[in-house]
Amino acid sequence: MINDQKVSLEPLAVVESPFKEKFAVPRQPGLTPSVRSRLIFKGKYASQDCFEGLDEFSHYWVVFQFHQNLKDGWQPKVRPPRLGGNKKLGVFSTRSSFRPNGIGLSVGRLVAHYQESNTYCVEFAGLDLVDGTPVVDIKPYVHYADSISDATSGFAQETPAILPVRFSTQAIVRLSQITDQQLLRHQLIEILQQDPRPAYRKQSQDDREYGFKFGDWDIRWQVTDEVIIVIDLVPL
Amino acid sequence: MINDQKVSLEPLAVVESPFKEKFAVPRQPGLTPSVRSRLIFKGKYASQDCFEGLDEFSHYWVVFQFHQNLKDGWQPKVRPPRLGGNKKLGVFSTRSSFRPNGIGLSVGRLVAHYQESNTYCVEFAGLDLVDGTPVVDIKPYVHYADSISDATSGFAQETPAILPVRFSTQAIVRLSQITDQQLLRHQLIEILQQDPRPAYRKQSQDDREYGFKFGDWDIRWQVTDEVIIVIDLVPL
Repeated sequence: MINDQKVSLEPLAVVESPFKEKFAVPRQPGLTPSVRSRLIFKGKYASQDCFEGLDEFSHYWVVFQFHQNLKDGWQPKVRPPRLGGNKKLGVFSTRSSFRPNGIGLSVGRLVAHYQESNTYCVEFAGLDLVDGTPVVDIKPYVHYADSISDATSGFAQETPAILPVRFSTQAIVRLSQITDQQLLRHQLIEILQQDPRPAYRKQSQDDREYGFKFGDWDIRWQVTDEVIIVIDLVPL
Repeated sequence: MINDQKVSLEPLAVVESPFKEKFAVPRQPGLTPSVRSRLIFKGKYASQDCFEGLDEFSHYWVVFQFHQNLKDGWQPKVRPPRLGGNKKLGVFSTRSSFRPNGIGLSVGRLVAHYQESNTYCVEFAGLDLVDGTPVVDIKPYVHYADSISDATSGFAQETPAILPVRFSTQAIVRLSQITDQQLLRHQLIEILQQDPRPAYRKQSQDDREYGFKFGDWDIRWQVTDEVIIVIDLVPL
């Protein structure tokens, strides 16, 4: 019976993203509009023909594989970070990345697309994908069908609350030495104001130093009195 | 290298839908809100735990396989029906069901969910899926991330133009013998006002009779002077 057959997919493209590790990747698309990622299509999927008319649409769905989570499998119930990590919900009531089949959905704003040697590159803003993510499809965002203005989303109706982000003197000195410092500054604010700490850390006094790899930098930061402080940017 | 590895998915559920064949299935979700479909989850995916909290969200994405099209493969360029079937676009600039990996995306309004013997059923309104479609994931529609009010969708910004639908005397007699005649009438209007004919048929005088299987009926119809006429409902 066809319905019980395995579905075998081929990665069409791989993501090239400044998010070099899972930690600090935003939990939904659109929260970091200054961050650019590229999808690198290869082989028969790199034909220019496949992308003719791409500019007709402003946004695209990216269907991808949560490749870093596969080895951990899935559980029927998960703790959404949005609920403080205390309450459990069924996996299908969440967008948890630990889910049957490990398939994810992200939406990005199309920025550019072009042939580059024997690959075809499609550049997006706002994707929440870690570097190296395998992509199994992209599809245009069809406004009349996909934008459901009256959809209710219980615990995730509005964008998550944000924290203010400040830069230490050391971080400001580092930034001043970078050509595109305004962009990087914007990107770090967009990422860190989400407070990427695990939910259970947010509930108590927490003065530890965190780090995440972004582009060529190890971003060092901590939270003091509900303010995110960027301590330093260390070259990788 | 993991990125070149095949991605192997297991169908979690199968769709039970009144659309018994591809012809006349709407081309995007949401166009036939009166039509209900059920996703029947089986085996370890039928555990009630997996669905706890499902009512938090009003709408869900359904990730599925275009199982009836797989044998036909894909081409780099396709002719979107919305463009009259004349203009070719790259496959990734369209939602064509003939695409690499054959994965589709639909969104439905959650109607009900419940255990039924050893399966778990999730009922949706508005899905554009044919009976028997294998489902590889469902995910909540997250309003703040997924509803992009300013997305531009070129040739598919607004819902497609519709044609008026009328019922012949014979069809009215048939309907009058059905218990839930108002619902079926609504459903047929929603489906047929889309004018499901292939694009090339719409361009010339076309008096042929069409049919499609919907629920327990073979719906017979034709187009006369830009009006859809339901000729008869023949029991299957």
